[in-house]
Parts: sequence; structure tokens; C-alpha cells
Amino acid sequence: MHATTKLSDDLKYDLIVKRIEERGVKLEEIAEITLDLQKKYLPELTLDICMDHIKRVIMKREVQHAVLTGLELDILAEKGLISEPLSTLLKSDYGLYGIDEILALSIVNVYGSIGLTNFGYVDKLKPGVMKKLDNKSPDKKEVHTFFDDIVGAIAAAAASSVAHKYAESEAVVKAYEKEA
Amino acid sequence: MHATTKLSDDLKYDLIVKRIEERGVKLEEIAEITLDLQKKYLPELTLDICMDHIKRVIMKREVQHAVLTGLELDILAEKGLISEPLSTLLKSDYGLYGIDEILALSIVNVYGSIGLTNFGYVDKLKPGVMKKLDNKSPDKKEVHTFFDDIVGAIAAAAASSVAHKYAESEAVVKAYEKEA
Amino acid sequence: MHATTKLSDDLKYDLIVKRIEERGVKLEEIAEITLDLQKKYLPELTLDICMDHIKRVIMKREVQHAVLTGLELDILAEKGLISEPLSTLLKSDYGLYGIDEILALSIVNVYGSIGLTNFGYVDKLKPGVMKKLDNKSPDKKEVHTFFDDIVGAIAAAAASSVAHKYAESEAVVKAYEKEA
Amino acid sequence: MHATTKLSDDLKYDLIVKRIEERGVKLEEIAEITLDLQKKYLPELTLDICMDHIKRVIMKREVQHAVLTGLELDILAEKGLISEPLSTLLKSDYGLYGIDEILALSIVNVYGSIGLTNFGYVDKLKPGVMKKLDNKSPDKKEVHTFFDDIVGAIAAAAASSVAHKYAESEAVVKAYEKEA
Repeated sequence: MHATTKLSDDLKYDLIVKRIEERGVKLEEIAEITLDLQKKYLPELTLDICMDHIKRVIMKREVQHAVLTGLELDILAEKGLISEPLSTLLKSDYGLYGIDEILALSIVNVYGSIGLTNFGYVDKLKPGVMKKLDNKSPDKKEVHTFFDDIVGAIAAAAASSVAHKYAESEAVVKAYEKEA
Repeated sequence: MHATTKLSDDLKYDLIVKRIEERGVKLEEIAEITLDLQKKYLPELTLDICMDHIKRVIMKREVQHAVLTGLELDILAEKGLISEPLSTLLKSDYGLYGIDEILALSIVNVYGSIGLTNFGYVDKLKPGVMKKLDNKSPDKKEVHTFFDDIVGAIAAAAASSVAHKYAESEAVVKAYEKEA
Repeated sequence: MHATTKLSDDLKYDLIVKRIEERGVKLEEIAEITLDLQKKYLPELTLDICMDHIKRVIMKREVQHAVLTGLELDILAEKGLISEPLSTLLKSDYGLYGIDEILALSIVNVYGSIGLTNFGYVDKLKPGVMKKLDNKSPDKKEVHTFFDDIVGAIAAAAASSVAHKYAESEAVVKAYEKEA
Repeated sequence: MHATTKLSDDLKYDLIVKRIEERGVKLEEIAEITLDLQKKYLPELTLDICMDHIKRVIMKREVQHAVLTGLELDILAEKGLISEPLSTLLKSDYGLYGIDEILALSIVNVYGSIGLTNFGYVDKLKPGVMKKLDNKSPDKKEVHTFFDDIVGAIAAAAASSVAHKYAESEAVVKAYEKEA
């Protein structure tokens, strides 16, 4: 069986990366957050390996749709095209809004529940590039209500992807082998 | 970078399949639910293709852990090793329990939010093999409180995996290509 | 301790109901879906009781924010203010989009995981008022990509709220009392 | 309409508190984590107010079921009643397990997605009483694989409950009032 029509994975990937970069963030900056999260568990981990996992995350359709939707809402809020009271909720990055976190959850979930912890941690501390996106002034012109959570969620999902690949414990391997 | 220890994917897969079969369900029976869910959208879909996607779902670590945990709780409840009031919650497949659904959610999420709808649908209707697992008598000896949701979640996740592979629309492909 | 400023619950509730009605759906129509879902378990259940629980659901801030955000996206798509490829994803109610389901999940979760099953079931079958919102023609003028899931999620959350209030089992009550 | 049988809320609450205390944690210790999380936003917040919100969280049925289930798994693992390989996953608090996080998510979700961030943050940093529960030695006798996440999730859910009650912003109040 063949899909009658099929999108090129590269085409989709390139479009999402372009949208992220147009909002002022480079993938390397997201990969740096991933490296920070995982290097204490995996001392040999490099930025290049983290970049590979960032790319895998961005290849996922659910992630692409969350990015397209969140950035659209940020941009429309900047342009004044969102109606009230949602406009104020978005422009002030209202702490009780919650929809930015639920979109981030759909990104993190792609690599399983272990990403929740890393997402929450970076969403609280706003390391690296996330700091410059986090500006809650209601008068500000730039709106990154969704984008800072999206960046954190991609970094956390990539950290999960790294952990799934490299962090298996010897005790667990032995426990499975005994049952085989 | 290499993982210092690495579990064989086949070993883990075989163990999970063995556990599912020991509880009375064959993978083909789960694949039949997937086929039922997707064939109206994809008339050429076959049981063999669905089996391939069931296998992919069962290769995911989050899914394996949900299966191991849910079946353990069912089995311990059967053996009378669970304390009260949890024992009664599990033995009666209490409708307000909710933890069986949250475990199922962790399975479904692996292929994204589109699986929620199919999971809810089969969890309500209990098609095929799910029917024989669904027996809410509080006096029954067999406990399948987690297992019926797990079977439905694996079937729904495989349906999402099939859809992600074959169900791209022409309109969406064109929309991306115009932006490239 | 007092909140320095405090929104009137009635004011927020009234605004959300107005927005839902402007999109062509009456709360009674959502309550009918809830009644359908629960009356086989609770034969004495009435539409009035279901309306009370619909109102409780709509009083929740997370639900209000999901409604405001989802309807805004539908309306902006109708007005041609969404950029491509997201515009096509929304106008065609693309089956692989997934963000509509994740927003619905944030509504359903407010009354716990037991709502997942009812949400999936109605999202598949589109009973009552959901049917008229579900029109996947890419040429259509009205866009209800988020709204049909929102309506189903509110109905399912209200069904959970009803179940939490009325559906406790005698066996579970006894199991707790023995442990007290 | 009346529920034919109805559990006493106090009875359920008392049982859950007893189970938490038997595992070595006092509610005040959880409330201290909540206070730490919220006092920088709400300088007048007190431990007593946080205790009120901890109690509200523990009154929720979904939370009670997550506590009963998670603690049961911890205790059965301590007693050697869990089969392999799950026993090793639980005894070593395996970082890739994920089911502890998904159970925590079901607790946090009760007060909406805004709790995800606080949960992740405390799950990473293990403040206060969480530190003494977090001991990943595979040879240890005590197993708190679920309990440390449960404690963090209750603290984070209570922080959300506090925020929902006291943290409304003036800009948002005005935006709603203009639309009324």
C-alpha cells in the first residue's frame, strides 16, 4: 500500500526551522539547553549529538503542528488581530492561561512522560535563549507566550530522546535478560 | 558516543508479547481492532500492515512500561495481594478509578493526540477481543481492569501510526509546497 | 489574604456562553449529549441536572481559555487571517492535525481521566449538534475544527462531573469503610 | 436525584492522609514546598493557606486513586512481590520508567496545565521532604519511586490552586470587563 500523496519530510522540516529562526532562535540555542539538561548524566554528550536529537523532534508531525499553531497565535497577537480578552491574555503572558503549557505537553509527550520533568524545570528557570523570550510586560511589542514554552518543550523532548538512546541501566538490562 | 549497556530490542519486544499472550490476547486480535478503525479511511489496508504497526507500538519503551505495570496490578489483584480499598477498585473495574485510562493515555500519546479519539471510541464499544476482557462482576476471578484499556490503547496507537504513514491529504501537501 | 483584583465568575461565564452561542450552539444542545452519555448508567438523570454540570464545567478557567483560543483560531481561519500551511490544516479539519484534540484534552482533564473515553466516543460518532459542526469540505466557509472537539469535550467533562457525583458503587463504599 | 450510596468525603480524606503519613511524610512538609513555589509571587501567603489547598487537592478522587495506586506499587516492590523486570525498574527508580510521571500528571491536571511547570521544577530539584525520598540505590530497602513524584505533584497542584484563587491580573480583569 502506498500513500497517494506524500509530503517530503525535508520540506516540512525546513519550513519549521525557518519559522523558528524568523522568531529569533537558532536550533543550536535549543540544543544547548538539551546539552545542559543531560550532560551531568552523560559526560561524553556533545552539542552535535544534541542537534541530531533536536532534528528528530522537529521531524515529528505533532511537534510541527504545535509550532505552527503557537507561533501563529504569538504573531497574530503582535499584529493586534486577536480579539479581547484573549489578546490581553496572550500579550501579558498570563500565568493562569495554561494553553501554552498544554501545547508544550503535546510536544514533550512524543518522547514519553519522562520529558515532563525537564520541561517543567526549564520552563521555570528559562535558561539560555529562553530568557530573552520571557518578557511579561503587557506593553511589549513582541509576544512570545507560546514560543518560550515551545522552545523549552523541544529542548526537553530532545533530552528524552537522548536519554532513551544512551541512558539504559545495567541492572535493568540484566533483569530483562533473566526473564528472556 | 555509545551507550555502555544496551538492551536488545528483540528481547524486550518478545517479553512484552509473551506477557500479553499469557493474559489471553494475541497480537492479531489487537491488529483486527486497528484494521476496523482505519479501513473505512484506507480501503486497501490489510491485517499484515496493521500487525507491522502493532509491532512498532510495542517496541516503544513507554508502551512496554505501561504494559508491565498494568498487567502486574491486574495479576496481583487476582492473587489477592493488593490491599483495600484499592483491591475492590481493581476487582470491580470501578468506573471512577481513572488510573487505567491515564496509563492508556501514556500509550496513545506516543503517536500523538490524534489517537485519543480512537482510544475513547474502542474503550466505550469494546470491539472484538476487548469484549471478553470486559467483565465488571465484583465476584469474578479474572481481573482485566488495566488490560482492556491497554489493548484498546495499543490498537488506537497503531491506528495513529497507520494514519501518520498513509493518510496525508493532497490539499495539505500543496499548502506546504507553496510555502517552501 | 485577599486577591487584590478578582474577576466576577458570572462575568466570565456569561462571556464564554455568548461566544459559544454566537458560533451556533446552545448549552442545552451540549447538555443533551451529556444526558445521552450518562442516562444508561443513571436512569433518573434529567436534562436540568446535566445543564447544572455543563455550567460547572464552563466556570473552570482552563476550560474558558481553551474555548477562547479554539474559537479564535476557527474564526481567524474563516476570515483568511491565518498563514499557510496552517490555514489549510484548519480549513480542511485535517485528521492528522492533533492540536484540536490536545485542547479538548485540557478541557476533559479538569474532571479527571475518566472523561477520555466519553470524549473519544462522541468525537468519533459526532452525536446531535456535533454533526452539524463537522463538515470537512476544504471549500467550506465555516470553520469548526476546534469547536466540534470543544463541544464534545465540554459534554464529556460534564458527564464525568455527573458520574463523580452520582455513580459511587456500594462495594467501593464498603471497602473504604472497612479501612477507616 | 440522589446517589444511592455515597462515600463520606472525610472518611476518604482521612484514609489518604494516613497512608501518606505511614510512608513518612506529613502534609505540612508538602505544604512547605507549595509555599516555597508561590511566595515569591504572593508575599502574604502563609503555610496555613497552603495547607488548606493541600487538603482540597487530597479531596479529589483522581488524586486519591493515584496515591493509593502509586504507594501500593512502592510497598509491593519493597516486599518483593513484584515480578521481574518491573521489580528492578521500581527498586532502582529507573529514569526511563515514566509511569511515575504519568501518575503525577493525573494529579497535577486536576488544577489545569499551569501545574506542569511547578511539578517538573520540584521533581528535578527535590526540595525539602522530597530529597529524603529520592534515593536511587538499587540495593536500598525503601522504595519511593512513585511517592516522591506524588508528593511533588500534590505540592504543585496546590500551588496551582493557590494561583487560581489569588493571582488574577488587573489587566486581564479589565479586558474581560470591557467585553461584558
